[in-house]
Amino acid sequence: MNQITVLKIGGNIIDSATALTRFLTAFSNLSGDRVLIHGGGKIATQIAEKLNVPTTMVEGRRITNKPMLDVVTMVYGGLVNKQIVAQLQSLGVNAIGLTGADAGLVRATKRPVGVIDYGFVGDIQEVDSGRLQSFTSQGLVPVFAPLTFDPTDPGTLLNTNADTMAQALAVDLSGHNQVTLVYCFEKRGVLANPDDDNSVISQLTHALYAEHKAAGSINKGMIPKLDNAFAALEAGVARVIICHADEVSAALAGEAGTVILV
Amino acid sequence: MNQITVLKIGGNIIDSATALTRFLTAFSNLSGDRVLIHGGGKIATQIAEKLNVPTTMVEGRRITNKPMLDVVTMVYGGLVNKQIVAQLQSLGVNAIGLTGADAGLVRATKRPVGVIDYGFVGDIQEVDSGRLQSFTSQGLVPVFAPLTFDPTDPGTLLNTNADTMAQALAVDLSGHNQVTLVYCFEKRGVLANPDDDNSVISQLTHALYAEHKAAGSINKGMIPKLDNAFAALEAGVARVIICHADEVSAALAGEAGTVILV
Repeated sequence: MNQITVLKIGGNIIDSATALTRFLTAFSNLSGDRVLIHGGGKIATQIAEKLNVPTTMVEGRRITNKPMLDVVTMVYGGLVNKQIVAQLQSLGVNAIGLTGADAGLVRATKRPVGVIDYGFVGDIQEVDSGRLQSFTSQGLVPVFAPLTFDPTDPGTLLNTNADTMAQALAVDLSGHNQVTLVYCFEKRGVLANPDDDNSVISQLTHALYAEHKAAGSINKGMIPKLDNAFAALEAGVARVIICHADEVSAALAGEAGTVILV
Repeated sequence: MNQITVLKIGGNIIDSATALTRFLTAFSNLSGDRVLIHGGGKIATQIAEKLNVPTTMVEGRRITNKPMLDVVTMVYGGLVNKQIVAQLQSLGVNAIGLTGADAGLVRATKRPVGVIDYGFVGDIQEVDSGRLQSFTSQGLVPVFAPLTFDPTDPGTLLNTNADTMAQALAVDLSGHNQVTLVYCFEKRGVLANPDDDNSVISQLTHALYAEHKAAGSINKGMIPKLDNAFAALEAGVARVIICHADEVSAALAGEAGTVILV
C-alpha cells in the first residue's frame, strides 16, 4: 500500500522565520509522498489590525466576518502559503500551494449560526483525495493553507481550523493509502507534566489519555488536538504522531514525540 | 494538435466585481483547454496604502521593494486569485489557483538594477509547460496570479507583468499545442481612433501597425501590448486576439475584437 505522510505545522512555527526555515529544511529531507498543512500565525491578526479589521476570538477560534475572511485569504492563502512554497522550491521540493477551493479539493459548508456566529468558517464535507493523490503521484508536494470553500452559488472561501483540515485530509487519503498524520508544534510531544518539557509520553493509549485527563495533567488546547488524533485513528489513519517541529525526522523514526495508539 | 486558449484579464476587470463576474461567467461557457492569467488591479495599491507601504510607479510599472512584494503576494496570490478560483468553481470550472512558484511552473530572475531599480520584479527564464499541460489534460483550469519565482537560494517570489506572463505561457505551450492568446481589456479591440470605441481594427497586420504607430493613432499603453502580441506570433503562437472582456466568446468566433496577424 502506498504510504503518505500528512504533516501539520502550527502558527508558532509560522511566526518565527528561523523556526520555519529549520522545519522546512527537515521537511525537505523526508522521503516519500507528503502533504503539508499550515496554520495562520499571528501575522493575520497584525495585518488585520493595520487594516482596521478587529479580531474577535471565541474559545481560541477566530470569528470570521467578510473583512476578516479577506484578510485570512490574503495572509494564509497568499503570503504564508506562497512564501512556504518558494522556500520549499529552493530546497528542491516540488511544492504546490493550495487552498481547499483549488481543484475543488476540500468542500465545506458555512458553519450554521448557533449560540455563536463564527461567520465564514467551514465545516468540511468532502475531500477529493483521488485528485490529491494524483498530485503526489506526479512528484508534487501539496501545501495547504487552512481555507476550504463552499461551491454553491456564488461560491465562497471559508476559514477552517488547520488541525481539523489535516485530520480530514489524512482520513480521506487512508481509503487508499497507509497514512501517518503528524502534528508539529512547539512542545516535544504530549507532556505528562505540562511544566516539564522533558516529560514526553512516548506512547499514548486511549486509557492513558483518560487517566491524564482525569488527573488534569492533559488539559486545555491539548484536548481538542488529542480528540482529533484519536478520531483520525478510529477513521482509518495508520499512525498519529505529535511532536516538536524540530524533531519531525526523529519522531517519524519512533525516537521522539508522542505516538497516539487506539 | 491539441488546442489551448490562454486568456489574460487586466486590472480594470479585477477592480469591478460585476465586470469580473460577467467575464468569469463567459469564461465558464468557453470550451476546451484554457489557462487564465489575471492582473492585479487597484486593490494592491489600496491595501498597500492602508499598510503604510508607499506605491511608486515608473512608466506604469510598480517598483517592488520587500514590503510591496509582501503586499502583491497577499493581494494577487491570495485575495484576487482565490476569489477567482472560488467563483469559477461555483460556475462548474475546475480552477486551480497558481503562482509561478507553484509546481515550479514559471522560473524567473530578479531584474538587474539598471538606471531604475525595479526591486523584486522577475524576468521570466523558463516555463514548465509540460507540467502545465498535465494539469489541463486532467480537466483542470490553471488560474495564474502575476507572480514568478527565483528558485535559487533562498528562493523568492517576483512580481511580474501579467501581459508578459501570458505571452511566455502561450509561447511555451505552442511547442506542443495550437495556442490562441487572448488579451481581454476595457476597450473593444485595437482602435483606429482612440476616441472612437467603435473604430475597432478587426485585423491588424505588422504593416498596418507600423502605419498607425507612425500616424500616432496607436500609442501609449497599446504599443508594449502589441509588441508582445507580435512577438508571441513570431515565437509560434497560432493566433493573438485583443478584445473587450465582455466579448471574449464573439472574439474567439472571429466576430469581435482585433486579430493580430504577422
